[in-house]
Amino acid sequence: MNILFFLTPKNEVAYLFEDETLRQALEKMEFRKFSCIPILSRDGKYTGTISEGDLLWAMKRMSISDMKDAENVSIMTILRRATFKPVHVDSNIEDLLDRAINQNFVPVVDDKGSFIGIITRKVIIKYCYSEMKRLSALKGE
Amino acid sequence: MNILFFLTPKNEVAYLFEDETLRQALEKMEFRKFSCIPILSRDGKYTGTISEGDLLWAMKRMSISDMKDAENVSIMTILRRATFKPVHVDSNIEDLLDRAINQNFVPVVDDKGSFIGIITRKVIIKYCYSEMKRLSALKGE
Repeated sequence: MNILFFLTPKNEVAYLFEDETLRQALEKMEFRKFSCIPILSRDGKYTGTISEGDLLWAMKRMSISDMKDAENVSIMTILRRATFKPVHVDSNIEDLLDRAINQNFVPVVDDKGSFIGIITRKVIIKYCYSEMKRLSALKGE
Repeated sequence: MNILFFLTPKNEVAYLFEDETLRQALEKMEFRKFSCIPILSRDGKYTGTISEGDLLWAMKRMSISDMKDAENVSIMTILRRATFKPVHVDSNIEDLLDRAINQNFVPVVDDKGSFIGIITRKVIIKYCYSEMKRLSALKGE
């Protein structure tokens, strides 16, 4: 089974570029209402993922409450608490589940390391739910 | 199958009381490193769940960067973006999966509505993973 079946493609995902600022991160996250978003290089490579919590603790540490100050902070200087490791587009479902155990979502990259989208835990749990029902029915459990 | 099998009990979970402040929420969340934590009444009833994002947007809206100001904000006045519905301790695995599709974790309550712990998506995905393997092996798929 191909994991592309589960993909939310890049054009439906909010993301940041690594040369953007804390202000841009705040604006994008508040507007799009995602709790974590991927960071890409300008040539489309996946670089990492930043969360609302990362922004919160950075602002607390730096005592920032003003959007003017947030303009001067590069997102790449913000400490990221969690690592969101990507999977390759050719990974199998086991690799995907294995990664989803420890991450809120799984970024997907192609052969060149270019970001092509994400797979959410929501979609994975939905799939598991229907698959477990199907297998149980076949087995008569 | 009993969902208690999946429970992280209350004594291992960080939580807030509904009469606590934004400052206390920040301190507890920063120290315990959870991205969302449940709110309880003083008599142990589950009231809701607050996330790092909720704190972030509240502080941005109120231009708070100082812990002194955060002391004067009750956590119950902070807008919560997501609803984390609890399941009853006697719920079945389908109810649990159904809820986990839309929530980062599932709070569990007893007959009296008292909070007894949470079930994380991590534990649910781990279970699905092993169950799918078991059923596939039985079926020879």
